[in-house]
Amino acid sequence: MKKISLLGATGSVGIQTLKVIREHPDQFSVAALAFGENIQVALPIINEFKPQLVSVKNKQVADRIRIQLDDQTRLVYGIEGMIEVSAFPESDMLVNAVLGSVGLEPTLAAIEAGKTIGLANKETLVTAGHIVMKRAADCGVRVLPIDSEHSAIFQSMQGQDRCAISRLIITASGGSFRDKNREELIGVTIKDTLNHPNWSMGAKITVDSATMMNKGLEVIEAHWLFDMPYEKIDTVIHRESIVHSLVEYADHSVIAQLGLPSMLAPIQYALTYPSRMELKQTKSLNLWEIGSLHFQKVDTRRFPSVSLAYQAGKAGGSMPTVLNAANETAVQAFLSEKITFLDIERYVETALNRHHVIQMPDLETIEAVDKETRAFVKNQIN
Amino acid sequence: MKKISLLGATGSVGIQTLKVIREHPDQFSVAALAFGENIQVALPIINEFKPQLVSVKNKQVADRIRIQLDDQTRLVYGIEGMIEVSAFPESDMLVNAVLGSVGLEPTLAAIEAGKTIGLANKETLVTAGHIVMKRAADCGVRVLPIDSEHSAIFQSMQGQDRCAISRLIITASGGSFRDKNREELIGVTIKDTLNHPNWSMGAKITVDSATMMNKGLEVIEAHWLFDMPYEKIDTVIHRESIVHSLVEYADHSVIAQLGLPSMLAPIQYALTYPSRMELKQTKSLNLWEIGSLHFQKVDTRRFPSVSLAYQAGKAGGSMPTVLNAANETAVQAFLSEKITFLDIERYVETALNRHHVIQMPDLETIEAVDKETRAFVKNQIN
Repeated sequence: MKKISLLGATGSVGIQTLKVIREHPDQFSVAALAFGENIQVALPIINEFKPQLVSVKNKQVADRIRIQLDDQTRLVYGIEGMIEVSAFPESDMLVNAVLGSVGLEPTLAAIEAGKTIGLANKETLVTAGHIVMKRAADCGVRVLPIDSEHSAIFQSMQGQDRCAISRLIITASGGSFRDKNREELIGVTIKDTLNHPNWSMGAKITVDSATMMNKGLEVIEAHWLFDMPYEKIDTVIHRESIVHSLVEYADHSVIAQLGLPSMLAPIQYALTYPSRMELKQTKSLNLWEIGSLHFQKVDTRRFPSVSLAYQAGKAGGSMPTVLNAANETAVQAFLSEKITFLDIERYVETALNRHHVIQMPDLETIEAVDKETRAFVKNQIN
Repeated sequence: MKKISLLGATGSVGIQTLKVIREHPDQFSVAALAFGENIQVALPIINEFKPQLVSVKNKQVADRIRIQLDDQTRLVYGIEGMIEVSAFPESDMLVNAVLGSVGLEPTLAAIEAGKTIGLANKETLVTAGHIVMKRAADCGVRVLPIDSEHSAIFQSMQGQDRCAISRLIITASGGSFRDKNREELIGVTIKDTLNHPNWSMGAKITVDSATMMNKGLEVIEAHWLFDMPYEKIDTVIHRESIVHSLVEYADHSVIAQLGLPSMLAPIQYALTYPSRMELKQTKSLNLWEIGSLHFQKVDTRRFPSVSLAYQAGKAGGSMPTVLNAANETAVQAFLSEKITFLDIERYVETALNRHHVIQMPDLETIEAVDKETRAFVKNQIN
C-alpha cells in the first residue's frame, strides 16, 4: 500500500489523482491532503478517503470545516499546514497538484523528508528548478512528472541511453485559438479562451494553453527535470494531442508516448512507476480510428509567449520567476476582465525587459522577485 | 571492439550493416562473413573489412574466388561454411541477414556458441521460433531484432513493465499496391510490384510487402520474439512509415519508436544495444516537415495474406513453415513470370489447407515439411 499526501485535492489534477487512487484501493491510500477553500468539494473527498491530516487555506476555512470532520482527522492550515501534509511521516509520496508558486516550499519539505515527488505544479520547477532538482539529487529523491508532456518524455527515456539524448520534442495542442491569426485574437472573450479543444483543465492553465505560455513554462520545466539545455528542447504543434511528447536520440531514433488525451494516465504512471497497472477509466488508442495526426512548426511570431519563455529560461536565475509571476498576474487580470487576451504577453514582456537577472537566487530572493513582479504588473494594469 | 560475424553480406541488410560498421571503425569489425555467389560485390567488401573467415554458397563459387583472396582469409562454403562463420570463436555477435530458411541452422549454431544474435532473417523465427527462442533462453543469449518493426517494438519495451504489455501494434506501409483494390491487382507486373513507396529492399521482401505477407510473417516473428499471444498483436497501415511500431500497456499508454525510413537505425541499435551512438548517415525526424501521419485499418479481405499468416501462426507447429515455404515458392514463381500477383496468396492458401499440423516439430520435421511444401507448390504451378 502506497500512502499519498495530496496537495490541491479539489483542483483538476487533484480530483483526477483521487480517481486513480479510487480505482486501486488495494494499492493506494490518501494519508494526508490539502485544499484551499472549496469545502463543498472537499468534504465528500475527506469522508471517502479518510486522510489522517487535512490542511486548508487559512484559519477562517479551518473554522468553517472543523465541526464537519470526525475526531480522527487532524486539521491544519496555511503554508505550514501544506508543509505538514507534504512531509507527513506516514506518507510515501507527495502528489503536488496545487497551482502557483505556493507549491514550492511544500515540495522542498517533502524532499527533505525523503518522499517521492509526483509533480504537477509547474511553478516549483520554473521558479526554483536549480534548488529543487539539486535537493532532490542530494536526498536521493525521485521527482516524477505528472504533466502529460513531461510524463511522456520521462516514459520515452526509460531503459534508454540517457547520454545519447539529442533532443526533447514537446507537443502542443496549440490551444483554443490555434487556428486564429494575430488580428483575430483582438477582442477574444474569456469564454472563447476557456473552450479548449482537447483537454479539460483549470481556467489559468487553459488561458496559458491559448497563449502557449503553458508550453513555454513546460520547456523550462523540461530543462530542469531532464537536465537538458534549451538548445535541445523543441516544441511542435500537434492538434490531436495524441502524441504526448517525444525524445530523439543520437541515432535519430525517436521514442514517443501516445494515448487518448487524459490526465489519468500520467498521474497513474507517477503513482505506479516503474510498474504499470490497468486503468479502466481510459480507452485504448486505435490509430486507425484517429485516422491522421498533424504536426506543424510553432510560429513564434504568432505565439510570442514561447519565445519569451525560451528567453527567460536561457537568461536563467531569477528571470523565469519574473516570467511566471508576470504571467500569473496578467492571466488573473484577463480572467477578471481587466485586460485583453493580447495584453497578457505584453505585460509579461514588459516585466522581463525591466528585470535585471539575479543568478542562482535563493528562496528568499525568488519570493522577493515574485512579489515585486506581481506588484509591478498589477500597478501597470491599474 | 565488437567483432561481428555477418551472414548475407552482399544482400540489402548486409550492405547496410557494413555501412554502420564503416561509420564506427573504432567500435566494430567484421571477423567473419558469408555471402552467396555475388563475387563482384563481395570482393571489395572482403578487401575493405578483411574478415578472417569467408564462406560462399558452394564449392564452385569458392573455386572462383579463392585466387583473389590473400593468405590471411580462410575460405569455406555451403551450410557448413555458414555455420562456421556464425560460431566463429573470435566473434562476439552474429548478424544474420540471409534470406530464407537457410538462416536457421547458423542461428542455432551461434546460439550454442553463446553469440549475441542480431536477427534480420525472418524465417528463423517463423519456422522454428519455438526452438530458437527456447535455445536462446537456455543459453542466456540475446536475440536482437533488426527488422525496423521489431526493433521499434523492442525499443518501445526497454525500461517498461513487460508484464503490463497489452498489445503490440505493427505498422505496415501497405506496400506498392496499397491504393489499389482487388480488381486493380489483376495483371499487375513485376516492375509495378517492386516499386515500393518507402523502403528500398530486396525483390522477395518487396513482393511480400505488396501482398502484405511480409506483415503476416512479422506478426509470427513478433509472437516468438516477444512471447506474445496472437490476440495481442495488431497491425495498422501507416503509409508514411515514420512510426515503426508501437507497444500498448495496461494503462492504455502507448510507447512508439519513430524515425525517417532507414534500415541503418535498427541495424545500429542491435549493434550498440543497450547504448546508442551517432548515426550520421540518417537524418533527424522533424514532424512539422512531415506534416501528417496517416493510419488505417488493415482490410483482411483486401490483404488476405495477413489473415493466412494469423491463421498459420495460431495453428502453430509446422503450419508457419508451410506458410513460409509456400510463399517463398510462389513469390519465386511470380518473379519468374510463371504466375500472377494474385496467384501468390492462392497457392499459399491451398498449401495451408492441405497440411495437417504437426505440433512442436523438430528441425528435421521442419526441413521435411519445408521441402515437401515447396515441391507441392512447384508441382501445382507447373
